[in-house]
Amino acid sequence: MNETAKLEPDSPSNREEGRAFSPRFGADGLVTCVTIDAARRDVLMVGHMNEAALRATLATGTVHYWSRSRGALWRKGDTSGQTQTLVEMRVDCDQDAFLAFVNVGGDGGACHTGRRSCFYRKVETDGGATRLAFIEPSTTNG
Amino acid sequence: MNETAKLEPDSPSNREEGRAFSPRFGADGLVTCVTIDAARRDVLMVGHMNEAALRATLATGTVHYWSRSRGALWRKGDTSGQTQTLVEMRVDCDQDAFLAFVNVGGDGGACHTGRRSCFYRKVETDGGATRLAFIEPSTTNG
Repeated sequence: MNETAKLEPDSPSNREEGRAFSPRFGADGLVTCVTIDAARRDVLMVGHMNEAALRATLATGTVHYWSRSRGALWRKGDTSGQTQTLVEMRVDCDQDAFLAFVNVGGDGGACHTGRRSCFYRKVETDGGATRLAFIEPSTTNG
Repeated sequence: MNETAKLEPDSPSNREEGRAFSPRFGADGLVTCVTIDAARRDVLMVGHMNEAALRATLATGTVHYWSRSRGALWRKGDTSGQTQTLVEMRVDCDQDAFLAFVNVGGDGGACHTGRRSCFYRKVETDGGATRLAFIEPSTTNG
């Protein structure tokens, strides 16, 4: 038995150590996408992709998501102008999470609140209380 | 009616613009956690937290996840030594995704394959074919 024959197409070892692209969609049909500003290298947002969104992203070079709230394929930027041009797509060991490094169009933001990043607050615990604190815009960078 | 009275506790505006910590767990009881090396500022892994894991993380300062494959609460590092000490926790606009900035114990890695980051491959498309390519260790940094 040679080395290749030992690897089942969907075995963990092949999925983790191979070059075959075999994204593992969850029970909800989705994978997680962490989207990163390619220039500033900080996290802009976390989204979800179904197979159609992932394929459209790779085929067009423009990031598509699956909107869980609207139940629809969503080409980011269609209404906001905040398009995301894919620079590089990375995948994790078990192929159920992706990092999309992007150049952002429009005003350069990704968050529907008008901020550049969706991660504009941090969690603070003080005694038993847990509260959020807003991060200064200049330090939202990962 | 004053400004405060306009905000329902779980309204989108309060969730997005307030200081109340009200994590929104999905139908599966989980939120997404993107874990970032606090010193190098790159993404190490993507994990999931149920309410118990999130609370344990904030209470102890050591990152806990919910293992979907094992169906169990999981204190990262218990077997590998790759503990993750929380430096800062950020939350996104709708409070269903978190960024955990961590200092990593043990060998400094996060991936069960032995690599520092789980994102050690990138997706390449060539004609109609989609394949993965390994990233050099020195460039796995986000």
